[in-house]
Amino acid sequence: MNRLKCTISYDGAQFEGYQIQKEKRTVQLEVQRALSRIHKGSEIKVSASGRTDAGVHAVGQVLHFDSPLTIPEGAWQKAMNAHLPKDIWVKKVETVPGDFHARFDVVKKEYRYKVNLSKDFNVFSRDHVFHYPFSLDFEAVQEACGHFIGEHDFTSFCSAKTEVEDKVRTIYSLEAVVNGEELEFRIVGNGFLYNMVRIIVGTLLEIGQGKNLPNDIFSILEARNRGAAGKTAPAQGLYLWNVVYDDN
Amino acid sequence: MNRLKCTISYDGAQFEGYQIQKEKRTVQLEVQRALSRIHKGSEIKVSASGRTDAGVHAVGQVLHFDSPLTIPEGAWQKAMNAHLPKDIWVKKVETVPGDFHARFDVVKKEYRYKVNLSKDFNVFSRDHVFHYPFSLDFEAVQEACGHFIGEHDFTSFCSAKTEVEDKVRTIYSLEAVVNGEELEFRIVGNGFLYNMVRIIVGTLLEIGQGKNLPNDIFSILEARNRGAAGKTAPAQGLYLWNVVYDDN
Repeated sequence: MNRLKCTISYDGAQFEGYQIQKEKRTVQLEVQRALSRIHKGSEIKVSASGRTDAGVHAVGQVLHFDSPLTIPEGAWQKAMNAHLPKDIWVKKVETVPGDFHARFDVVKKEYRYKVNLSKDFNVFSRDHVFHYPFSLDFEAVQEACGHFIGEHDFTSFCSAKTEVEDKVRTIYSLEAVVNGEELEFRIVGNGFLYNMVRIIVGTLLEIGQGKNLPNDIFSILEARNRGAAGKTAPAQGLYLWNVVYDDN
Repeated sequence: MNRLKCTISYDGAQFEGYQIQKEKRTVQLEVQRALSRIHKGSEIKVSASGRTDAGVHAVGQVLHFDSPLTIPEGAWQKAMNAHLPKDIWVKKVETVPGDFHARFDVVKKEYRYKVNLSKDFNVFSRDHVFHYPFSLDFEAVQEACGHFIGEHDFTSFCSAKTEVEDKVRTIYSLEAVVNGEELEFRIVGNGFLYNMVRIIVGTLLEIGQGKNLPNDIFSILEARNRGAAGKTAPAQGLYLWNVVYDDN
């Protein structure tokens, strides 16, 4: 058997998220369907670095799977893209050691979140950017970003439905990059809880509007209560940007 | 009655073109449906600067219609956007003299055509850019662009189905703007025949690939025969960018 590591991008707009669910169009379903065609009908199970929700995009999601086929890396990429729908694209396929695991071996992940602050709605980016037509205090947003850096208990910043027990995560960097009326959040951490990036972004946008102060991040973190943080920003602005493993 | 001039943008991906056709989702249908709701069910007919084909986008399409309602311009915009689907956006509504006509009064129009030359497919722009993963001779493309400027008979550059008799049009400017792996054609003229921009772009891309020389544009124009020009570039890269009238 060969273990393959596969880096893919997808437009989340027409998917009910990454993970297979009965009778829903999901990314995992389409990837496994393409691999099954390449393997003459045999089922091939893929493991991802993590799930993404309905409407969330990926620029660098990572998967692994095992195959009895011996195919050059470039040919794997071509074959998969030939069998995948237009909203998934395989960027790279690499042969990796048999103990590589797309989920357990993650060292850090980067998410990005795109916001359009223009008064005018952009029909072309409606599924790919959060339209938030308000003026923001960027200095306040930037100051608040800094308060997330480091190791914290993120109970206030995850969906109340989260079943994971350990809610301590480390944020390595969090930047708010402004370019005219476009605002992009870039966040790198060792792991993320359910809805964590979207709640952080929703909270930062409310600080930008003056509804809270940058220093309120400290008390929100301490509260360990989802109700203390801001609204969950919508799925369409969120991108799983990059997944980092030890060897790259 | 008040005559209103209305500038709209739309994402053509999920429309069967601009013009009303039985049982198809078209831009005109959605705009007339929104206006009908604003007018408590009365039918309001709109006239556009021209049609666009299935999959073709608009950044500045212009329409006019007549209404018995007296509403401030900003409120017109709000009301229309509230009743339109997310892939149409009204940018501006202006009260104009009763003899203004969105089609007959056009002085010039600008179209743009977006090409992605990257080897990698971009899932996010798949409906909005033509993916053409080849290296091009930009100098040849730019030289060929210049040969279109001026008044010409464009019989070779329109669909053989075109019923219009007079195929003479004037091109005021045609530029090929390169930005990394993105290429954008910008073309301004006094009018365009059916498929004319898409055939011009298809022909220019073939010149960029060395299949024809820049000077071949002269003989292609002289041939007055659709078969002499290149392929029709696909709809998804094309944008009706701007329509100019005498008063702006």
